[in-house]
Parts: sequence; structure tokens; C-alpha cells
Amino acid sequence: MATQVDKTAVPFDKTALESVLNRRFFYAPAFEIYGGTAGLYDYGPPGSALQANIIAEWRKHFIVEEGMLELDTTIMTPAPVFETSGHVARFADWMVKDTKTGDVLRADHLVKNVLEARLAGDKEARGVAAQPVVEDDKKKKKKAAKSVAVKLADEVVKEYETVLAQLDNFSGPELGDLCRKFVIHNPDTDNEVSEPVQFNLMFKSSIGPTGAYPGYLRPETAQGHFLNFSRLLDFNNGRVPFASAQIGRSFRNEISPRAGLLRVREFTMAEIEHYVDPEDKSHPRFGDVRDTTMVLLDRDTQAGGSTETREMTIGAAVHAGVVANETLGYFMARIHTYLLKIGINPQRLRFRQHMANEMAHYATDCWDAEIHNSTGWTECVGCADRAAYDLTVHSNKTGHPLVVRQALKEPIVEERDVPEWNKKVLGKTYKADAGKITEAVEKLDQAALGEVKTALEGGKATVTLPDGRQFDLTPDVLTITRKTLKQSVREFTPNVIEPSFGLGRILYTLLEHSFWARPPTKEGERAERGVLSLPPLVAPTKVLIVPLSAKEEFDPLVAEVSTKFRKAGIFSRVDDSNASIGKRYARNDELGTPYGITLDFASVKNRTMTLRERDTMDQRIGPIDEVIATVTELVNGTIDWEGACQRLPAYDGVQAVE
Amino acid sequence: MATQVDKTAVPFDKTALESVLNRRFFYAPAFEIYGGTAGLYDYGPPGSALQANIIAEWRKHFIVEEGMLELDTTIMTPAPVFETSGHVARFADWMVKDTKTGDVLRADHLVKNVLEARLAGDKEARGVAAQPVVEDDKKKKKKAAKSVAVKLADEVVKEYETVLAQLDNFSGPELGDLCRKFVIHNPDTDNEVSEPVQFNLMFKSSIGPTGAYPGYLRPETAQGHFLNFSRLLDFNNGRVPFASAQIGRSFRNEISPRAGLLRVREFTMAEIEHYVDPEDKSHPRFGDVRDTTMVLLDRDTQAGGSTETREMTIGAAVHAGVVANETLGYFMARIHTYLLKIGINPQRLRFRQHMANEMAHYATDCWDAEIHNSTGWTECVGCADRAAYDLTVHSNKTGHPLVVRQALKEPIVEERDVPEWNKKVLGKTYKADAGKITEAVEKLDQAALGEVKTALEGGKATVTLPDGRQFDLTPDVLTITRKTLKQSVREFTPNVIEPSFGLGRILYTLLEHSFWARPPTKEGERAERGVLSLPPLVAPTKVLIVPLSAKEEFDPLVAEVSTKFRKAGIFSRVDDSNASIGKRYARNDELGTPYGITLDFASVKNRTMTLRERDTMDQRIGPIDEVIATVTELVNGTIDWEGACQRLPAYDGVQAVE
Repeated sequence: MATQVDKTAVPFDKTALESVLNRRFFYAPAFEIYGGTAGLYDYGPPGSALQANIIAEWRKHFIVEEGMLELDTTIMTPAPVFETSGHVARFADWMVKDTKTGDVLRADHLVKNVLEARLAGDKEARGVAAQPVVEDDKKKKKKAAKSVAVKLADEVVKEYETVLAQLDNFSGPELGDLCRKFVIHNPDTDNEVSEPVQFNLMFKSSIGPTGAYPGYLRPETAQGHFLNFSRLLDFNNGRVPFASAQIGRSFRNEISPRAGLLRVREFTMAEIEHYVDPEDKSHPRFGDVRDTTMVLLDRDTQAGGSTETREMTIGAAVHAGVVANETLGYFMARIHTYLLKIGINPQRLRFRQHMANEMAHYATDCWDAEIHNSTGWTECVGCADRAAYDLTVHSNKTGHPLVVRQALKEPIVEERDVPEWNKKVLGKTYKADAGKITEAVEKLDQAALGEVKTALEGGKATVTLPDGRQFDLTPDVLTITRKTLKQSVREFTPNVIEPSFGLGRILYTLLEHSFWARPPTKEGERAERGVLSLPPLVAPTKVLIVPLSAKEEFDPLVAEVSTKFRKAGIFSRVDDSNASIGKRYARNDELGTPYGITLDFASVKNRTMTLRERDTMDQRIGPIDEVIATVTELVNGTIDWEGACQRLPAYDGVQAVE
Repeated sequence: MATQVDKTAVPFDKTALESVLNRRFFYAPAFEIYGGTAGLYDYGPPGSALQANIIAEWRKHFIVEEGMLELDTTIMTPAPVFETSGHVARFADWMVKDTKTGDVLRADHLVKNVLEARLAGDKEARGVAAQPVVEDDKKKKKKAAKSVAVKLADEVVKEYETVLAQLDNFSGPELGDLCRKFVIHNPDTDNEVSEPVQFNLMFKSSIGPTGAYPGYLRPETAQGHFLNFSRLLDFNNGRVPFASAQIGRSFRNEISPRAGLLRVREFTMAEIEHYVDPEDKSHPRFGDVRDTTMVLLDRDTQAGGSTETREMTIGAAVHAGVVANETLGYFMARIHTYLLKIGINPQRLRFRQHMANEMAHYATDCWDAEIHNSTGWTECVGCADRAAYDLTVHSNKTGHPLVVRQALKEPIVEERDVPEWNKKVLGKTYKADAGKITEAVEKLDQAALGEVKTALEGGKATVTLPDGRQFDLTPDVLTITRKTLKQSVREFTPNVIEPSFGLGRILYTLLEHSFWARPPTKEGERAERGVLSLPPLVAPTKVLIVPLSAKEEFDPLVAEVSTKFRKAGIFSRVDDSNASIGKRYARNDELGTPYGITLDFASVKNRTMTLRERDTMDQRIGPIDEVIATVTELVNGTIDWEGACQRLPAYDGVQAVE
């Protein structure tokens, strides 16, 4: 039987995790030897592999299973595109300057840090154990506001809490008001701060040698989808619904990033744009996800100043109108399933609905998948119904129709009054005004046209031009006739449901959720030994092959086992360093490698090897091929460790060598 | 038996290929509805999938098989990094301006286009069938120089040919001389052009809100490897050789890109940096590749004004010193194998060595894998020995040692003369000059120290400072003693061998090599029908599933077959559009889908289906599971079409339905 492991024996220690991630080169500050640049990180071998595995599963879960159309569009984007999309005008954060030092701070973060610190100080003063204020990055000079034990009036506490619950809802001027009202200063210097001003978050550059063509680095991949809509629709034989998907780099020139991978200036995203008939947002596969239970924090709850969540099935949420429509709900459920599959703790996942001011004006509904971590709740996936906004603005700007033309099964037949002109008399009578007069009449709705018709039957009708002038019309120049019209094609701009994934944030929160430490086994031992319990699905390396020594007689066996794993599609690595077996396993616990195999003299003699499971440290033994087959099933998820223990006997630490 | 196909019956037609690539959305100009931006392209679904498959095979062939350490580093790079690497000063092309219109042209391309056009005109005048001058992109306003049938003197022809063979060898001022000497004007306007000036090809931006930190978009991924060298070395337990690898976007602000995917401003690269002991550039697996025969165009041949290639095994080339060392040769052979595996025509692949001026000053040797296409020979992979340049400059600039420290198996033991000082007497006697005097003596080599020793034995030695002053030294202040010294660690900066792949160029040339057309089958039929014979390994979709009609009774079977292919890891697509079977297959011939499966009424009744092979259009028939098994083997490369024909009987066009 598999051993039981208590992963909570040692409390979570962020410093210990950061030490592991840095030491094992999951990621590190970019340009470190040049002193680093805030908000830019490089992924080393385990981080790259983990990211690649997260992406591979994303591609399988979304692109392959849903038959999406993949795209790879450019990062560099000419300015007119982002002028149309609204990013040049609005893709900005509010920043304040320290009035003495000129240091730049993000306004909403400033308010949040200071008020949270005061609340923490209040709790301390009241003798309630406060949650420690988290310092995001120890190496940065600027620090989070320090809490001082000062008791606040009860109504002030309530007011601060209400502000914090609604923080994403405030405009720049409102943030300025808050700074004045609550006397919020730069916590580093205690100097006053300036009025908030907007800073556009797009990196700007120039395309070509002349300097005449400004360009921006995309802050999201979405525009690349929208601009190719006609081609995508054509590729899909002219039919909706369908989805495009893209995985790629995006850039945001953050004002003062200092939260590790959670707020960076360059990041890998995965975005889906699902195009749907605005009159029918049902989803054919909604039945598959209807019973998925999710943790929701809706808009009304937040507006009431609370952050209490409730559990609901997505079916019930859509039915009750909490979630706007089936397609949005379908993707929320699929996002939920994906995140659990790669190892996110379901207890630390919630979907939070955007509040009114927070949501783009055109959006119908928007939910963020937020993942809890040592800094609080962090948005990791956004899932928005963007309505027809993007396709409409690009179409209006370029004159290129971004629409679906759908043959109607039953043509729409209707009777309508239609104006008919005697062009000759018209020109002769009204000369230069003829055009304006016809235009004014053509614009009339059916009711108004009916009135004109009646008047004409009486001998004369009067038409008013937009400039106020009035003209009389007689039956010799205009007749109104009843006609039967048939419409056989319906033309519409599809709505877009957009699930948008920040892969770096998902990767980081997954690392926090996976990390724990084994307590020291005996008095005086070097404290905890960190373990990253990454699921085999995403673990950077699946199997570590450890030859007992670097002796050449192991070489053929190491090569054989490596080759067999490669053929089975299981990524393995050999560690033939001089370190002790124990040290090599400890290193790989930190790297999140789920399985370890030891080759020793008995392996050479008997063709057996031992198999170690990372979390339990259980060791089993079996013939080489059987162990490889077992590991293959474990990695592919067809058996669990309990199942493996039923196949392979426990290893008692001694292998017989005759 | 499989049918024989003649793929050369219809001559290659670039316009036909471009029509297919555009129509089927392999790729398209980015921001097309905004009028496009030169040098920026978006990949649609088949292009994205083809690229993903090329990358997957690259990862397998290089990263997995060679156990490389993968990295994912940032694109945005602070300016100091590229100041150190030399890119700010030297990563530039020479451009000339039309003296009247101000149009900008790349100087070397101008010379090439004009001279090639004149040579073509000469051939025409001599009545020799000239190769048509290729217009790179029909939609661009600027055109390649047009050839006019004018005969040139024989010695002029010879001179032009020599210039063209050495084109990459000319500096900017030399290109200016050529423009004057050969009276080269802007072919669009016939105006004179200015003296060449340098234009830096890096896109510039600014990091953070202050504007004080300039940054560049990387023009290659390499610096991201070098800056992380210490961490990578540590990850590899301190040992060389090892390699890092990275796949990612890079940017070059080309002066006037107009060659489709062959010269773009944003592209995906795959780069390897292999770190090796400068004193031992042998490669442990060189034996595996020694007999690979390659087509080489060496430096001396080009310097002689010729472009004649020769075939050699890489073993012979390294042995003869044509290729500088085993590691460089090993990678050239591996690149060769990789390119053939994904479908590059070996007849149109050569390795060209860089000429003296073309190569970076620090490089030891450099070979480009060039692939022939409709525009000529194009560099698609560079393979350079960059020596210790990069690690040295970054280390010098930052003070961070980027070196390997290697424990010597046998410590180096040597006897040396060592100066020993009486510090007390030294300070008292020489006061402020004491430091300079000791420094001057410590710097002496063993021979000079020996002379001092002899002089001291005679009672007095004289030392000369760098400023020219001389001091006498006596045995009471300095003694020279013979000592035995042991050095147990060797410290060195590794050399770097860099294979660097332009994936977009490889993808485009592969599309050209794969494209052919079936001749019309009968008089009056719409001319050719294009086929992309992409190998199954990289084809965007492996199998097309075609139900005979959209009737619902096919749905369960379509679902069954799709699921079975997915489980077998074979990417399939269903085409249930209303088009005829023939049209659906023609569409998929253009998409490069190697296999097609038809489900008809007999399939429902008998559980059989037909299998069509793209190139031969052969059709075979068999039970559903047997056809799936056969296709799986075909795609995985364990059998070929000939083998499949032995398993499945030919389909005669009629399926029995009882």
C-alpha cells in the first residue's frame, strides 16, 4: 500500500520556495549580471519545460478537443490598429509621482498597500493575529507599506474594507480623492503624491528606416485574431460558431512591477476568440459541462462591499442569469477543468465577475478565474463576452466588412411601401436639390412613407430636408407603390467570447500550490527539504535515472533504459553526477520529478531496478521492462501510485547479488 | 503496387503556389485590412500547424536527442547588453537614398538587382535563354530591376559575375564605389543614389514610465543564452561540453523588405549555443555523422569568383581542414539530416562558408546552410564557431566571471622563482613608491626574475617602473626563492558553436520544394491542380475524414473514426461541407494533407472505408480498424505507401452494399 504523506506538517514558506526556484533555475531575473530589469524574467530548463508542458496540455484541451483554428500573428503592430481598438487612448494605468523625489507609483496599488497596512496595524493593536504583509520581492528597493500597530475607529475599518473590495472600480480622479481623503503618502518617503495621471502601457517603437510609421508591441494577441476574421471564416467554410486560438508573447510596460512572475512586462499568453451568432449564444456541448461545480463571486456581492463566494453548478449559474449565457459558461467550466488538470488546487480557485466600471463599456459580461497565492487572489484567466465591439470598430475604420453572411433556410418575405421617382421631372423641377430630396424620402420609415402616400393621393406631399427647407412633391414626380420583397441572406457581425490566459501567472501559482516541505527527520538535521509535487502531466522531467556510480559497466543499461523511455514518449534524464543517491533524489524533489529509478549492481546482474515515488518516497522493485511499463502508465495517468504498488513489490533496501 | 507520379510534368509556377498559400491561409500579410505592413506576416491555421510541426521535430532532433538545456528568455532587452555585444555599433545594413524622391534602398540589394538584370539582358541579347528575373512580391510598388536586352562586353560580364560572387564581402563605402563605377541608379526612377549610410536594424523602445531606460527588441536569441551561462553551467553540474537551446521570436527592422517570408521584420528562430573546451573541439558522437555526404561551397572557391560546389563527407571535410573542427562539422551534419527529414530537397541544399570580411572578426569559421528557391540561394541556418567572444565581452563588462572551473585530473606541478619581500624594510626605504616597485617585480616573467635573482646574488638589482624611474633593490628587501607550485583547477572561457535556424525561411523553401501540379487530364479542363507534397511528419493535418454526405447516419461513424485517430495521436480533420468529394480532396491536396478517408453508405453497412494517398491519388479499401492502423504506421513512418498497398486491396470505385 502506498504511504500517506502529510504535506502540511511544515507551514508554507515563500522564501524557501523562492530559494528552490532560483537555485534550480526555474526562472531568474533577466539580465541578472547587468543588475536585472524589473518585470523581465528568463525561464531556465525546468521552467521552460514546465511552461512547454502547460502549453501542450492547453493545446490539447482547447485547440485539438474543440477543433479551434490556430493562428500565429505578429507582435509588432502599426499604430492605426491600436488607435481603432481604443488601446492608444485607453490602455493605461494611473500613476502618481512622489512630489519630492519624483518616484513613480501606480495609484491603485498605492491605495491598496497603504490601506491594507493600516488594517493590519489595527488588527495588531486590537490583539488579533494579523496576516503578515507580504513583501513581493525582497531584492527590490521599494517596499510594501509597513504596518504599525495603530487602532482605527470601527467605522474607518469598515470604510477601508469597502474601498478595498471596490478598488478595481475607481477612476484616476477618484483614486486622487482617496489619497487626499485618507492622507495617503508614498510609504517609502512619507512625501505627498501628485494627482494621478495616465501612463499608456504599450511599448512604442518605429517600423522601417524613415521614422514615419509608429508601431506598438501588442499588449494582447486578440487584435491579430480580429483582423484575420474574414480569412478564418472562409477557412471554416463561412460558418459560425468557430474559434481561433493563439499562444504567444505580449508586452505591457508596467509602471513599477514588483511581484515576481505575477506582474511582468513581457509574458506568454494563450487566447481564444470564439465567434458566435449574437442571437444564439447557446453552446452545443453545454450539456457536457452543466454539472461542473464552481466557486463564484458575482458583481452584486462585490458592489455590496463583500467578497463572499458561493458554490454553484455552471448550469444553475447560467439558468439563474448569474452568468450571461451558455457559451460564456461553457468556457468558464472548461477553464476550471483545465486548471485542475494541470494541478491548481480547487480550494484556491474562484471566478470573480467584473464590476460595472471595471468592465469595458462594450462587454456584456466578464469573469476572471482568480487563483489564490501568497499575495492574495490573482487574475490568471479572463473570460469575457466582448459582444461585437472589435469586429465592428475595425470594419468601420477600414471599410472591410467583418460579417457573417448566412443563407436563410426560409427567406424573409415582406410587403413594403417603396418610393419610385420620375427622374426626368425630378431633375427639371428641383435641379440641384433633387439629390437631397430623394435622399430625405428614401430615409423615411414605413409609417412616414405611408403618410406621404396618403398626402400624394390628396395631390401633394411636403418633404423637409435636414437643413430645414421644405419642398412640395406631386404624383407626377413621386409615386409610392406596395411591393413584395424577399430577403434570402442574413448578414450579421458575430459576437466574441474571449478566454484569455496569462500562462506565467498560472505557472507561478501552480508552483506555490505544488510546494511543500518534509519536516526534519531527526534533531539537529538541516531543517526542511522542499518538494514540488507537480503532476506528472506537467512535471519538467518525468523520470530520473540514477546509476549507483559512474562506473562504465552501468553505461549499456543506462542507455537501454533511456532509449526505452524515449520510445515510450516519456521524458527522462540521467543524473550520473558524483553526488550521493540521497542528494540526487533531494535535488529532483526540488525539480518536481515524480519518479526516480536506481540502477545498481543487482540491476546489471538480475535486470531489475527500483522505482521511487517523489511524494511518499516509497520504493518498489521489478524487472526493467515491467518498471518501464508501470512508469509509462503512471505518467499517462492510466494508473495511480496505489495501482503501481499492487504491481511491483516493495523494495526493502537490499537487492540480491549472487 | 503504388502508382508512379511525375511531379515535374508541369513546370514550377510561383504565382500558382502563392495563390494556394494565400487562398488556403498558410500565411498572409499582417494588418492586410489596414493595407498591410512590409515584412510582417501572420500564419493562418495550416501555416501555424506546419510551423508547430517543424518546431516539434526540431525539439526532438536537437533538444531531446542531444539532451540540450532549453531556455525561454525575454525579447525586450536593456540597451547596455547590446552595447556590450556590439549590436548597437555594428548591427546595421547600408542604405542609399534616391537623391530626388528620398526613397530608401538597401545598398547591397540594389547592386545585386541591377547587375543581375544587366546580365540577364546580356544573355537575352546573345540569344541565350535567360532565367526570368523574379519579382519578389507582385503587390509591392517597388519592383526588381527590369532586364533590357543589351549585350555587354565579355570582360564586363566577367567583372559583374565576380562582384556578385563576392557581394557579401563589400563594405558600405565599397558598395558606394560600385554604384559610381557601374553607374547604378534607382531602377524605379533612374535617379542617382546617395552615398551608403548605416541604419541600425534593431527596433528601439523604452522600458518603464520615465523614458530613462532605452531597450531594444532582440535581433537574435543568443544573448539570452550567454547572460545565463553561469546558471546553465551550474545546472549541468559545472561540466562542459553542453548546449542550451531556445525557440522564440526575434526582430530586425529591415530597410525595405520585399521577399515574402524570406526577409521579414519579425520571425521565429531556433538557436543552439554549444559550449566547448577551446582546447578540445572534438565531439564524442562525431563518429555517428562522419560519413554524411554534404555539398560544400568553401571560402577559397568564392574568393576565386566561383560558386562551384563539391561533395564531401563531413569526416573528410574536417580531416582536410575545410571545416574548422569536429564540433562544427557535427552540427553541420545534424542540420543537414534535420532539413532532409522535414522534406527539404537534398539537390537544393548546400553549405556555404563565410568569406573573410563577411564573418564576424572573432569567429573562427562559419557555414550557412543555404536552400535553393525561386529567388536563388537563401541562408536558412547559420552555423558559426564564435570562439570566446560573447562570454568574454559580457564578463569584462559586468565583472561577473563566465568561465568553467575544471578540476585537473593531474595537478600541474612546476618549479618557479617567486619574489618574497621584507615589507618593513620595503616601506621604510621606498615609502610611496613601495607599491609600484612590488608591482613591477611581480609582473616580471621567469626569465627576467632569474636575472634579478642573479643580480641580487651580486648584491644589487635594478628595477625600472613604467614611468621610467629606476630603483635599486638589495637582498635585505627582496629575495627570490625557487618554489614548487601546484595548480589543481583549470579556469577557462568556453568557446561557443552556434547553429541558428530561421524557421520562416525553412518553412517557405519547404513549401516551394513541396509544390507541384497535376497536368489537366482532358482538353479544355481548368489547367493545373496544385499539390503540396509535404511529408506526413510535418503536414498540418495528417488525415482528412470525408463523409459522403452530411446525412446524420454518418455522424456516429465520423465520431468513432475521429476519436480513434486522436487516441492514436494522429491529427485528423473532418470535412463535412457540401462540396463534392473531388473538390474536398483537391482542397486538401493544396493543404498538403497526405491521406484521405471516405465514409459512405457501405462504411455504415460493412464497417469498411477507403483510403486515398495524396500524391498518387491511389485508393485502397479495408476494415475501419485496419485502415486506421495502416494510416498510423504511415504517419509514424514505420511503413511507406508501397507497404500500405500490400496490406490493403485496391479500391475499384464500387463498394458493395447488400
